[in-house]
Amino acid sequence: MAEPALDGLVDALRRLPGVGVKSAQRMAFHLLQHDRDGARRLATALADAVKRMRHCQRCHTFTEAEVCSTCRDSRRDARLLCVVETPADQAALERSGSYKGLYFVLMGRISPLDGVGAGDIGAERLLERAAEAGVEEVILATGFTAEGEVTAHALAAALKARGLKVTRLARGVPAGSELEYVDLGTIAHAMGDRR
Amino acid sequence: MAEPALDGLVDALRRLPGVGVKSAQRMAFHLLQHDRDGARRLATALADAVKRMRHCQRCHTFTEAEVCSTCRDSRRDARLLCVVETPADQAALERSGSYKGLYFVLMGRISPLDGVGAGDIGAERLLERAAEAGVEEVILATGFTAEGEVTAHALAAALKARGLKVTRLARGVPAGSELEYVDLGTIAHAMGDRR
Repeated sequence: MAEPALDGLVDALRRLPGVGVKSAQRMAFHLLQHDRDGARRLATALADAVKRMRHCQRCHTFTEAEVCSTCRDSRRDARLLCVVETPADQAALERSGSYKGLYFVLMGRISPLDGVGAGDIGAERLLERAAEAGVEEVILATGFTAEGEVTAHALAAALKARGLKVTRLARGVPAGSELEYVDLGTIAHAMGDRR
Repeated sequence: MAEPALDGLVDALRRLPGVGVKSAQRMAFHLLQHDRDGARRLATALADAVKRMRHCQRCHTFTEAEVCSTCRDSRRDARLLCVVETPADQAALERSGSYKGLYFVLMGRISPLDGVGAGDIGAERLLERAAEAGVEEVILATGFTAEGEVTAHALAAALKARGLKVTRLARGVPAGSELEYVDLGTIAHAMGDRR
């Protein structure tokens, strides 16, 4: 169609994760035809977030402040430090209501195939944070995927070498599962860790 | 997390079609963590497209000009007017290489369940356009979905009442398909067999 403003929008939308050319076209047409106000709002929200969001100096999550509200919350148990991959994982833990300690957000995970090493996920900063006075236990809550396990393994080794107590979220059968449909590795772990 | 700039971005991304809260979070985190340049480009592209894109005065598709490049192309056969639902459908017909006439883009379709009637898709403007001197055949290429068929039926009746020759893409396009997703050979056959 040779419409540069439209082509530019489709190209920019394609850079979003999980958006291919068809989805990008559909989004662009939808915004232009039915939601120009939404398009303006998204443009403003993007510019605003890029300008204002930075990393918490304590836990490395996204925040507009120097230190995020969770790290500033004096009611949280500062003896516990839970390591997660993303703010979304942190939010899931918060929703579970099972944890009242502090966090360290890696903003990624070790993934040798993608060339992401320990340095890229701020392992050094985690070691410094974990070594601060008052931290009694570091809970590794990275995902139970191949990359999450590699990350947990590498971090556990480094943390233990500094004399820190390190734990990992328990593996087991998820609530609501039929045993029949749970993968065998999970069943084997659940059996081994039975209590 | 109570981070207004981040929450605002997630909310704005959720207004995109097909994007739920999890996808919106993933997009926001990805942009902030890995592609701030992409976020800035998307913001600019959105503002730019909203400002510059309007509707072609002849065929109603999106264009930056008064009249789009297709409508201005004197090599196209002005005796044929093909009616499609969206610019994406038009693009699919163009890629099939089976059609050299002009277009009218409805930018929608009649959908009684969604309260979209003939007036909402510019049927009146289509009737004026089709009644212009030189138009010998109006080809209805709306989708072969329930809404596309209803649209074709309503437009065919109105066009025939004005004495115009009306054809429909041949069946051969599988029922239930969106034209945009049909393979090009099928589109070409359907164009050849139009009746």
